[in-house]
Amino acid sequence: MADSTTTTISATTMYVHKVVINILVGVCFLSFPSGTAISWQHRNMILDNFCGNCIFALVSSTSSSSSKSILSTSKSTSTLSHQSCRRRRNIHFRHRVLFGSNNHNTEKSDNNDHPIIIDGKKTAAAIRKELEEEIKNIRNEYDGTIPGLAVVLVGERVDSATYVRMKKKAAAEIGIHSVDVTLNTNISEDELIREVEKLNSDPKVHGILVQLPLPDHINEAKVLKSIKYEKDADGFDATNIGNMWLRGGEPPLAIPCTPAGCIELLQRYNIKISGKECVVLGRSNIVGMPMSALLQSCNGTVTVCHSRTENIPEFVRRADILIAAIGKAEFVKGDWLKPGVVIVDVGINDKPDPTKKRGYRLVGDVDYDEAILKASAITPVPGGVGPMTIAMLMKNTVNLCRHSLGLSRLRLRDRLHDGEYVNTTTSTTTTTAFTL
Amino acid sequence: MADSTTTTISATTMYVHKVVINILVGVCFLSFPSGTAISWQHRNMILDNFCGNCIFALVSSTSSSSSKSILSTSKSTSTLSHQSCRRRRNIHFRHRVLFGSNNHNTEKSDNNDHPIIIDGKKTAAAIRKELEEEIKNIRNEYDGTIPGLAVVLVGERVDSATYVRMKKKAAAEIGIHSVDVTLNTNISEDELIREVEKLNSDPKVHGILVQLPLPDHINEAKVLKSIKYEKDADGFDATNIGNMWLRGGEPPLAIPCTPAGCIELLQRYNIKISGKECVVLGRSNIVGMPMSALLQSCNGTVTVCHSRTENIPEFVRRADILIAAIGKAEFVKGDWLKPGVVIVDVGINDKPDPTKKRGYRLVGDVDYDEAILKASAITPVPGGVGPMTIAMLMKNTVNLCRHSLGLSRLRLRDRLHDGEYVNTTTSTTTTTAFTL
Repeated sequence: MADSTTTTISATTMYVHKVVINILVGVCFLSFPSGTAISWQHRNMILDNFCGNCIFALVSSTSSSSSKSILSTSKSTSTLSHQSCRRRRNIHFRHRVLFGSNNHNTEKSDNNDHPIIIDGKKTAAAIRKELEEEIKNIRNEYDGTIPGLAVVLVGERVDSATYVRMKKKAAAEIGIHSVDVTLNTNISEDELIREVEKLNSDPKVHGILVQLPLPDHINEAKVLKSIKYEKDADGFDATNIGNMWLRGGEPPLAIPCTPAGCIELLQRYNIKISGKECVVLGRSNIVGMPMSALLQSCNGTVTVCHSRTENIPEFVRRADILIAAIGKAEFVKGDWLKPGVVIVDVGINDKPDPTKKRGYRLVGDVDYDEAILKASAITPVPGGVGPMTIAMLMKNTVNLCRHSLGLSRLRLRDRLHDGEYVNTTTSTTTTTAFTL
Repeated sequence: MADSTTTTISATTMYVHKVVINILVGVCFLSFPSGTAISWQHRNMILDNFCGNCIFALVSSTSSSSSKSILSTSKSTSTLSHQSCRRRRNIHFRHRVLFGSNNHNTEKSDNNDHPIIIDGKKTAAAIRKELEEEIKNIRNEYDGTIPGLAVVLVGERVDSATYVRMKKKAAAEIGIHSVDVTLNTNISEDELIREVEKLNSDPKVHGILVQLPLPDHINEAKVLKSIKYEKDADGFDATNIGNMWLRGGEPPLAIPCTPAGCIELLQRYNIKISGKECVVLGRSNIVGMPMSALLQSCNGTVTVCHSRTENIPEFVRRADILIAAIGKAEFVKGDWLKPGVVIVDVGINDKPDPTKKRGYRLVGDVDYDEAILKASAITPVPGGVGPMTIAMLMKNTVNLCRHSLGLSRLRLRDRLHDGEYVNTTTSTTTTTAFTL
């Protein structure tokens, strides 16, 4: 009950805020020199990128120049400052919501006022740095052994080619040996499998990744199955998945990259998972399903929602930790959220945005502007989970190399500290094997 | 809110009912001939086994004989009628609760007044009958091939020996070829593994089961791992578990018996899983974890609670379907339950009971007497999930035999009918493979 009241108020406040900004922008237009045309597109861009205070400041400092020059300056020279401005707008906005009504005081205390913006770029860079150290250690201690990653690309899809390039770049930066196998789109399934088998028996290759999707005439499952378990860089092999779920048995050799990245983010931001109610939106093989296994292994109480779940908002409302991986732009609304929730937004969706050159911008599965008013910590899109995936692919490659040398996997988590991250990446000695 | 009121009332009513029965029994004692001693133990037995009406009837019909003779007669000749009497007591009791207060009318409509008692014995018998047919078909169509199950027993534990005997008996009854390997408790790990490997290469053996627990000097995980994936009758192999979790891939060859049995019970009683909120208590490798995979594959929205879950009753209150596999006698109380809940009680626990010869009786993880007032369907203990486990072991053996012949697995569920059971066991032709 209390929750729905909160919801109504913040939605109304938000509406009032939008109206106020509109009026403000209208006033600004009047103060511009006559004859200056300002389109709706530009108005929207101002609304999207600046807080009320900034608009005032900008207008007063440049009231003699045209609106176009304001926009072009800000566009070209200070994209980052726009972002931070936008973030400030959110915080500023939140302040107004929080302090404008007593009803929100509980909300304020619940989410520490300023939500933590979980920085995936910075965290991924830190992990890559640790891996670089680890790769040097392996090289020194094991006769110049270098972890090797083979990436198989079939056809000429632009997005696939971009991903592959990013992966190769990340590998090169930290000293992983890259093997590229670029194949014609007409290659037969058997030929492709033969290529994978060659890599299976190449001692310089420790991890193999076949870039998906494959052309229609090829059975993806069959090709993926042909990758040797010990070289499965994605961690999607059935035995890996089984070992990830089984408690107390043999640990998996690799863990699916995106969910592993989410756990790293939570741990490195000291977010406790144990005993928390975790809600995972989506049950895909690559995110939702392994995510629920990892959260459960960290002692979270996990609920998985999916396309057949009735009343998803009700489930989301219960979440202390929400993992959104449902692939729908801004699907989760602010009024679905429990104050203080930790949000990990795995979604990367295009949202039409005429202010952008390419006509769209990237948004997550969660409405960020609304969520930031409720969350105690949140991953932005882009810059949240995204950069972690490639870092974790590198970690899997290093781990598979360690396995080939008889070393245990670099742990994803420390069971003893249960949520706290303990850096074990610089040691190459075999440590007690934790399941994950 | 409504729920907690309901709860309080039923608890109070229950208490009043107990007091009334106590007074009733007290009155009965007065009507017994003087000099007849009746102990508290006997009083408890009366309370446990008879409803108020029955006590009246018994007392009036035998008021001239001693209480001891009543008890001895009932003990020796009508154990079954005691049980049905007890069930009647519950229903009778429920009627009073339901009709005694208007507050319970919603409860009444929610759980159809009389809860369905899910009969595991009858269902297991039906499955065994279907398997018997299937085994005959395989024999006729595939040159006299007989599904074979090898059971390895190490040492002389009485409980293990009993289980093994039950499994062999069930196998023999439906025409499965049994291979017994009984080994000395001092056998070394290597020798045991060699025995398993012999069975791995025996073409007459399709399923292998090593009875657990093994003696302390043997590494159980290592021995279980030595069982060939294609002969893993328990379905605990990592690849099997992985394939069970992965959607749309290769189906598992065998499914852990107890959770598979639970799904069979739900399906054969036409209980819809899709879209329902399912709460699983326990995350063990043998029940909780595979159970959550199976429920999710049937499109349930699944939450897994475990030792680190805070406030388990709150989770239980949300359940449309509750699977209790936490191993604590009568852990789940009646006032934790949502009216109309479907309960599958996997627990088998000893509860001290001085009225029993052996000093205890078997109870589940759910307080049956309380739960029956809220549930729309419930499995009793014993006679619920228990008998299903061995039936599903037989089904796994038949399925492994089918696999060796290039046939697909008899489906656990029909994805199309989603919750409705469709009998496919009598056909030996290869059908479209469903994941589960």
